[in-house]
Amino acid sequence: MSRVPSLDLVERVAAGTVPAIGRLISRAEAASPEARPALARIYARAGRAHVVGLTGVPGSGKSTMVASLTAHLRKAGQKVGIVAIDPSSPYSGGAILGDRIRMADHVLDTGVYIRSMATRGSMGGMARAALDAVDILDVAGFDTIIIETVGVGQDEVEIAKASHTTIVVSAPGLGDEIQAIKAGILEIADIHVVSKCDRSDANRTLTDLKSMLTLGALTTRRQDWQIPVLGISAYKGEGFEALIAKIEAHRRVFFETETGVRRRLAVARFRLEKTAENLLIQRFQAASAERAGPLAERLSLRESDPYTLAATLLEETLGPGASP
Amino acid sequence: MSRVPSLDLVERVAAGTVPAIGRLISRAEAASPEARPALARIYARAGRAHVVGLTGVPGSGKSTMVASLTAHLRKAGQKVGIVAIDPSSPYSGGAILGDRIRMADHVLDTGVYIRSMATRGSMGGMARAALDAVDILDVAGFDTIIIETVGVGQDEVEIAKASHTTIVVSAPGLGDEIQAIKAGILEIADIHVVSKCDRSDANRTLTDLKSMLTLGALTTRRQDWQIPVLGISAYKGEGFEALIAKIEAHRRVFFETETGVRRRLAVARFRLEKTAENLLIQRFQAASAERAGPLAERLSLRESDPYTLAATLLEETLGPGASP
Repeated sequence: MSRVPSLDLVERVAAGTVPAIGRLISRAEAASPEARPALARIYARAGRAHVVGLTGVPGSGKSTMVASLTAHLRKAGQKVGIVAIDPSSPYSGGAILGDRIRMADHVLDTGVYIRSMATRGSMGGMARAALDAVDILDVAGFDTIIIETVGVGQDEVEIAKASHTTIVVSAPGLGDEIQAIKAGILEIADIHVVSKCDRSDANRTLTDLKSMLTLGALTTRRQDWQIPVLGISAYKGEGFEALIAKIEAHRRVFFETETGVRRRLAVARFRLEKTAENLLIQRFQAASAERAGPLAERLSLRESDPYTLAATLLEETLGPGASP
Repeated sequence: MSRVPSLDLVERVAAGTVPAIGRLISRAEAASPEARPALARIYARAGRAHVVGLTGVPGSGKSTMVASLTAHLRKAGQKVGIVAIDPSSPYSGGAILGDRIRMADHVLDTGVYIRSMATRGSMGGMARAALDAVDILDVAGFDTIIIETVGVGQDEVEIAKASHTTIVVSAPGLGDEIQAIKAGILEIADIHVVSKCDRSDANRTLTDLKSMLTLGALTTRRQDWQIPVLGISAYKGEGFEALIAKIEAHRRVFFETETGVRRRLAVARFRLEKTAENLLIQRFQAASAERAGPLAERLSLRESDPYTLAATLLEETLGPGASP
């Protein structure tokens, strides 16, 4: 398609060229083997930016918060990259544009780069591609890179955790079902944020979170780090200076302590495993497409069972010994 | 642990013995290879029940609706099995009990069996285990089996679609972020339900959905089937007879037409592929645990990149040729 070799693409990314950034992220997302040498060079050069994972249940005000946080980081002179993992339609194609629309204020600012990624075709691929995108933005010179994920689904939560500093956003006044989901993600926070603190019921959410921390229902501290609970109001523009100070303080813990070394190792292991699993599934899917049809027909007619036929498909596809 | 061989477990499941049902579902969930002969026999005997997938965004009133629908199906003399795929804490263990709590009315009714399944350790495993659970309940004599999933995340949506009849629940008055997520799941509906129709703003949601269908923004019909939009109120107990009639009408389409044959084939293919992928990832994870540590350390130190090290891990784990 393009006659420019991949190696030049890396240099153009490193120079901060916007179309080059977009193109290389797309290649990472498509998982094309041709992109791997470029992504290997990107990885070798990355590691300078601060990566902030930000998650919260639907309705917690994540996207509004990301927009305000970005504005405040820009004022402090930082370039900000945003990787938004969107719930996507598995059938109609394309990530939902909600996050992009909310970020309209930043669209003309070259100090901000926003990328929405689909959750489609996951099987480890979402984490792999999102972390490649983070590295690309890192090499392109962005100082803080925010990975925004919806806090539902294991993959999404794990990606938010695969960062240097994980922020979990809670909002006042959400329903029972949402609260129940929320319980599952509170434990990954390095920093708790309560959004919409202009609302009268926000105090209760702040108090609840602080009680949970005090009573030991949640981890109150990590080694070298006391987990804070901060209130913000994107509407009033309040609380962001304190939040940015905490993010910066946690960045120092990440880059300057033994805790940081251990966390980098855990993130590297997560990334290695997700990448390997994704490569493995890709290979299987490509190799099995033709054989799956006839075997599915036998399954549909109940001539055999899912496990026996899956083992057959694995053997026929990846050779003997592939099936456990 | 138990001295009773697996084959007897199948017979006890077929006799509707509650502890046997729970035990075999747990074995399916744990993916123990020893359970496979039993699950193969279950699969051969299943296929009688009507499997209803039910999904909707958080806050759409899914669980309340499932409880009411179950009550109405019970009144009509049906035994009802429920497989609830819960968002779960990936770190604190255990599925959230919200759904079970809401189902308290049915706890003492032996005509209702409720099983919450964690979304943890997915990689295809959630779909595989959920569909095994459906078969177990089918063989145990439940007439309608409801798979309830939260409509966020590709896996959850795909599981709801891997049923005979898929219901998508919408609720009035949800926020923007929720609405955006919702857009991604509307297309899988065989039946649309608007919950909370006692609310004054429910009419708008009904009208919106009907307009989307009329204007062609959504699929209006599948072959042999016109997609209906129904309003219910669990609070007032209204709309459930009409809903049950539509479920029954769609059941006939599924079991008696060419459309049903094609759908069964699609579900079988989904199940075959998910089972194979899950077996493959299980084998890789078991085999790679030891080697992943040292390679992750090299990755953490940026001595090499994720793709090269993932390929190394795959080769060392599954033999040459395993890496694509």
